[in-house]
Amino acid sequence: MNKAREFDQTVVTELQALLGDRVTTSTGIREHHGKDESYFPVAPPDAVVFPHSTEEVRDVVNICRRHGVPMIPYGVGTSLEGHTLAVNGGVTIDLSQMNKVLAVHEQDLDAVVQAGVTRKALNEHIRHTGLFFPVDPGADATLGGMAATRASGTNAVRYGTMRENVLALTVVLADGRIIKTASRAKKSAAGYDLTRLFVGSEGTLGIITEVTVKLYAVQEAMSAAVCAFDTIDGCTQTVIQVIQAGIPIARSEIVCEQSIAAINKYSKTDYRVAPTLFFEFHGTAASVVEQAEMVQEIAKENGGKDFIWATKPEERTKLWEARHHAYFACLQIRPGSRSVSTDVCVPISRLAECVAESLGDVKDDVAPVPLLGHVGDGNFHLMFLVDPNNPAELEQAKAFNKRLVKRAIAMEGTCTGEHGIGLGKQGSLVEEHGEAVDLMRDIKKLFDPENLMNPGKLIPAADA
Amino acid sequence: MNKAREFDQTVVTELQALLGDRVTTSTGIREHHGKDESYFPVAPPDAVVFPHSTEEVRDVVNICRRHGVPMIPYGVGTSLEGHTLAVNGGVTIDLSQMNKVLAVHEQDLDAVVQAGVTRKALNEHIRHTGLFFPVDPGADATLGGMAATRASGTNAVRYGTMRENVLALTVVLADGRIIKTASRAKKSAAGYDLTRLFVGSEGTLGIITEVTVKLYAVQEAMSAAVCAFDTIDGCTQTVIQVIQAGIPIARSEIVCEQSIAAINKYSKTDYRVAPTLFFEFHGTAASVVEQAEMVQEIAKENGGKDFIWATKPEERTKLWEARHHAYFACLQIRPGSRSVSTDVCVPISRLAECVAESLGDVKDDVAPVPLLGHVGDGNFHLMFLVDPNNPAELEQAKAFNKRLVKRAIAMEGTCTGEHGIGLGKQGSLVEEHGEAVDLMRDIKKLFDPENLMNPGKLIPAADA
Repeated sequence: MNKAREFDQTVVTELQALLGDRVTTSTGIREHHGKDESYFPVAPPDAVVFPHSTEEVRDVVNICRRHGVPMIPYGVGTSLEGHTLAVNGGVTIDLSQMNKVLAVHEQDLDAVVQAGVTRKALNEHIRHTGLFFPVDPGADATLGGMAATRASGTNAVRYGTMRENVLALTVVLADGRIIKTASRAKKSAAGYDLTRLFVGSEGTLGIITEVTVKLYAVQEAMSAAVCAFDTIDGCTQTVIQVIQAGIPIARSEIVCEQSIAAINKYSKTDYRVAPTLFFEFHGTAASVVEQAEMVQEIAKENGGKDFIWATKPEERTKLWEARHHAYFACLQIRPGSRSVSTDVCVPISRLAECVAESLGDVKDDVAPVPLLGHVGDGNFHLMFLVDPNNPAELEQAKAFNKRLVKRAIAMEGTCTGEHGIGLGKQGSLVEEHGEAVDLMRDIKKLFDPENLMNPGKLIPAADA
Repeated sequence: MNKAREFDQTVVTELQALLGDRVTTSTGIREHHGKDESYFPVAPPDAVVFPHSTEEVRDVVNICRRHGVPMIPYGVGTSLEGHTLAVNGGVTIDLSQMNKVLAVHEQDLDAVVQAGVTRKALNEHIRHTGLFFPVDPGADATLGGMAATRASGTNAVRYGTMRENVLALTVVLADGRIIKTASRAKKSAAGYDLTRLFVGSEGTLGIITEVTVKLYAVQEAMSAAVCAFDTIDGCTQTVIQVIQAGIPIARSEIVCEQSIAAINKYSKTDYRVAPTLFFEFHGTAASVVEQAEMVQEIAKENGGKDFIWATKPEERTKLWEARHHAYFACLQIRPGSRSVSTDVCVPISRLAECVAESLGDVKDDVAPVPLLGHVGDGNFHLMFLVDPNNPAELEQAKAFNKRLVKRAIAMEGTCTGEHGIGLGKQGSLVEEHGEAVDLMRDIKKLFDPENLMNPGKLIPAADA
């Protein structure tokens, strides 16, 4: 309590001198910034600031550091792992007003944006260029946030994740230095890969203020298809064989029977209620037809039924909106519930086995447990629909998630394919990386000796 | 001198107790390990060891650390920047006998290899699987060495560099810890990206002993073509337009008029002596034809002449051997010379300008300066053919390279696309990264506080 009062008098005054009315301590705004899409209890910061430039972020960092106040970078709050919660109080640095596209280099296929630009805003901005930015985590997240969590999504199987699609970052370090991690060259062998050290660092090493991303040519033809199967196994086998055949599918998403039913209800679609794959093909008109034919052939051998095609842009949009709304659709399976989302990723050869064992494990759960997945990457999500007022359900979901993580790691997989560590997976990080976590902890100490940059996230406490 | 004698008596005895006759101090072997493909003077180590396992490497590291002796990891010595030279003496850890392919996961499209496996050996090993490993720096380098220098080569434009193609590493740290940087999952958001921190670290943070790499399906059709142009500019414009059109070319290499003449002489080919592009197309039979037709159309608009096709495997091999031997072919332009190879990489929109200015700068050089380049990435090499007995020529080449690096950085490029920093580019690293080099230096100190891991490489001295 005292801390909060002291905080008001000094830090906020200094921040206001810097940013004027772009500093707030209003309860509503603090509460809003103290939660995300995860199941964690609200943890509001003491103040929220809205900088407009890298230099303003630096000045905020310098004020906070002088006062020993935690700093939490914030985009639009779509984290599923509690990344933006102010668990130690402090100042949330909301970057959403840093929303300028600074440069689009059409010939070089890259763009430089402020961290608060969302992926949809960028794609809207470059619509006339014939280029697009592919990484697509479903939510319309900011590019700074996506870089910070190493986000991916539905078309990583073809275009990669933020790991592959960030060329360079501008970062404000804990000591107020501003660094540029790389040039705009497509590749470089010049020194340690600082770019990739910050990609996925979840705000714990510094605050990302600008992002240079790769762009891609919009292909002549982009067509999508939905195909139902008898079994989940039929879906996974199909995708394994497609990838092994070298067919460059742009998307391959698995959706379970329950999710399809929920999608139909939520998005007013009428897909067959069965384990289903959503595909997308990018290329020339001829090559898309060729890819689709080959995939259809493979699907048929694995029990695939009719292909429902979406070749016109508006049909494709509708199909992928249905897929992207699956999360919200599934929440409606149990109205009033919150979701605990799992996120393991395993080598694709183990995917069918991992999914089957996991579905066996949850078959008697209190509510249905929908499955959604980026099957081409071996990454899938189970959604535990828990009653937020029933702690026992939350504990049950967490216990399941621990068993799932153990299973995935035993299969040479990872505890998180794309959601990150945040608050909830620090134990899993140790389980997965063992002694290497000590190295991560040392890096954290090197970059942030006073533990002020998004403290409590990613790095487990030394005695954990 | 005393150091060398003291060294013999203690370190070598301990190493011999560990490795028996896999320790040598013979002058011939030490001299061989004290040079690479670069122009730097020979700097032999005090001893060379040949471990067979990660555990043996760890034991060697522990012995060396106890005695404060530098350690230099060594693959097959194909570095172009002096990475393997023992500039401070010490023990060279030759990993070439760690040449086992430990696992090939055909369904997962990955392989786990010991660091001494070369790229050709891996491709030979997996030939029956219908898969291949794409990264191709020309030389038959080891995968450990390629990871350590963040190597790339001719088909990075389609398949990426070692940055994108290493899934995980096993590394022996300076303090003897053995860490695994990641699982075999295709993507992960679990903690800091240690894999990419070691990729490109040039042996200065630890010794890579095992590498997990991505594999790709051999495509139904792979065909190559050679096309001559009136001008270098015609070549670069063609590739820019091909990439902007989203045509997934697998390779696009530029070779200047002088290099083509040298290649014809060396490889007994009869290509038209003119600025030339070497292309490769991968895909289904139909899509390869389609890609090739589109590229031919674009080339024609930019002054491209006849396409010479190579569709049969042996023709393709011959064509790419001719390209890969270009380095040795060009050395013959001035018999007895050594090459100082430049390696800048710029955004592709600046490539034509960067090449033109650079060729202008060297037009009165003592010998012709051949140009070779991975034009799809904006990366090109100029070869200064210097008389190794004439220091003035070497100085002139170095001065040119400094101007070139300055030019590339001003164009938002990098001082090295794929050769690395090594001994020769530490000043350029500072020029390119500015204050960020301090961060790199701090990371180096954290991982290697006694500066024993390949000292003198990558990180400039604090007072540089």
